[in-house]
Amino acid sequence: MASFSRLIRFLAKDGNIYYGEALMPVGVKDVSKTTKARVIEGDIFGKHHVTDQIAEVSVLLAPLARKDIGTVRCLGLNYEQHAKESNLPLPKYPVLFYKPVTSIAGPTDDILVPAMAQRGEGLDYECELVVVIGKEAKDVPERQALDCVLGYAVGNDVSHRDWQLKLGGGQWGLGKGFDGWAPFGPGIVSPRIISDPNNLHISTKLNGQTVQSSSTEDMIFGVAKIISFLSQGTTLLPGDLIFTGTPQGVGMGRKPALWLKDGDLVEVTLAPDVGTCRNKVKIVPDKPSKL
Amino acid sequence: MASFSRLIRFLAKDGNIYYGEALMPVGVKDVSKTTKARVIEGDIFGKHHVTDQIAEVSVLLAPLARKDIGTVRCLGLNYEQHAKESNLPLPKYPVLFYKPVTSIAGPTDDILVPAMAQRGEGLDYECELVVVIGKEAKDVPERQALDCVLGYAVGNDVSHRDWQLKLGGGQWGLGKGFDGWAPFGPGIVSPRIISDPNNLHISTKLNGQTVQSSSTEDMIFGVAKIISFLSQGTTLLPGDLIFTGTPQGVGMGRKPALWLKDGDLVEVTLAPDVGTCRNKVKIVPDKPSKL
Repeated sequence: MASFSRLIRFLAKDGNIYYGEALMPVGVKDVSKTTKARVIEGDIFGKHHVTDQIAEVSVLLAPLARKDIGTVRCLGLNYEQHAKESNLPLPKYPVLFYKPVTSIAGPTDDILVPAMAQRGEGLDYECELVVVIGKEAKDVPERQALDCVLGYAVGNDVSHRDWQLKLGGGQWGLGKGFDGWAPFGPGIVSPRIISDPNNLHISTKLNGQTVQSSSTEDMIFGVAKIISFLSQGTTLLPGDLIFTGTPQGVGMGRKPALWLKDGDLVEVTLAPDVGTCRNKVKIVPDKPSKL
Repeated sequence: MASFSRLIRFLAKDGNIYYGEALMPVGVKDVSKTTKARVIEGDIFGKHHVTDQIAEVSVLLAPLARKDIGTVRCLGLNYEQHAKESNLPLPKYPVLFYKPVTSIAGPTDDILVPAMAQRGEGLDYECELVVVIGKEAKDVPERQALDCVLGYAVGNDVSHRDWQLKLGGGQWGLGKGFDGWAPFGPGIVSPRIISDPNNLHISTKLNGQTVQSSSTEDMIFGVAKIISFLSQGTTLLPGDLIFTGTPQGVGMGRKPALWLKDGDLVEVTLAPDVGTCRNKVKIVPDKPSKL
């Protein structure tokens, strides 16, 4: 098992980017509040060690470097109330889609809205528990499934409903896959600290107002089931991420619909012991290229 | 631009695995017929050179090593007659889905059918032109889109129709993503040789009988359009693959349906100048783990 409890990746005040073990202030559980870390050297998924070097955190980055991230899997409709607000039937099996690795961003990055996503409407948030796979796993039974978990984080499965549901031929990936549309973090918290991933409070604040508030207990398919299912005939690799679905309260499910707009601050939180990703929505200027 | 014309990756008779420039026998255009190659050293997407070392090919492997493969994007319904045989409307925009990197296999590997894909029915072939991205590209206009192409290959988007269409909640990835369900190769042929990717003959033979036969000219969205579209707001990276859709003639479109079975030989071909992937279907014994 990995030797860290709360893995972060950060730009340090000394100008370097490190992996580190977050040093948490007394009584603080939100990893995003860490200001110092012990530098980790080596392969996060293999041989590595937590050194005695303490570095000061300047900016928290996505907790895995792009080169360390494998396939990004996501589940849809994995909370009953969210399936209902989406007017879609409860799934019999986990509903799988993917995001490209370029959609991954850090816990303080802006959510950039490119020209293509400024067409139509439906820019939305989805607060999710993110599972980070630490060990290769194939055909793993449910009772052993959690053994391959490196840790847990919170993420935002940013979505453009028109491209996701209307313009993408029914396939969800297109409207969810733009650069930086899967911020996650603030760190990766070990199963040593999170012994039951299906007993966490999951919530979203939009400009300070709570818009999603639920428990991972309400997942239709729990974490062990998800991992076991996704590993059937399919090898999960170290560095693969699984976004496990969002509870009710997304903008699409509201009347009237509540779409994100330029300057909005979205905070997704998994508590206790994981913390918050805070990302600001930024409409980027139109590019000269056209569809 | 890359220095090779026909990139292969192979197990050599000396026991090593190399990247190489295929040395084609006179008059032969199918890269799968190559028996010798000049070894390539360095980074396939960056600085590399074709050496004077000639190695004998023992087994052709997937033309990119897993570590060199990025995101695997696929298009659905990109040939008019195939959309019709699928009873689905013609898409207004490219229909995007993904496969995990673990689905990639080589041009001689068996197509392994795991226990999960032995449930239900609908094991099917899809012959496709595969575009290999060689340079980072974002918001690229159509007229410049082909500049980021490393080369072209042929691939089989192996599909399980029940999991794809009925049991996967409408999302196609699950029924197409099993280990080894995206064999491609036999090599990556440079745009220097294939100046027009939308003028190639594309075909499938099942146990020697032709079951798909069309032209990439019949794509609804041509290669330049696809790359430009997928790059909008999304960075394409070196090593990303795009499976560009299949023409009519898949098993699902036949009456009665024609499903693959144990021992079937599927040959997908892109001609001239690319060649053939030959993959045998193999039902793997049931694993002890259960869903």
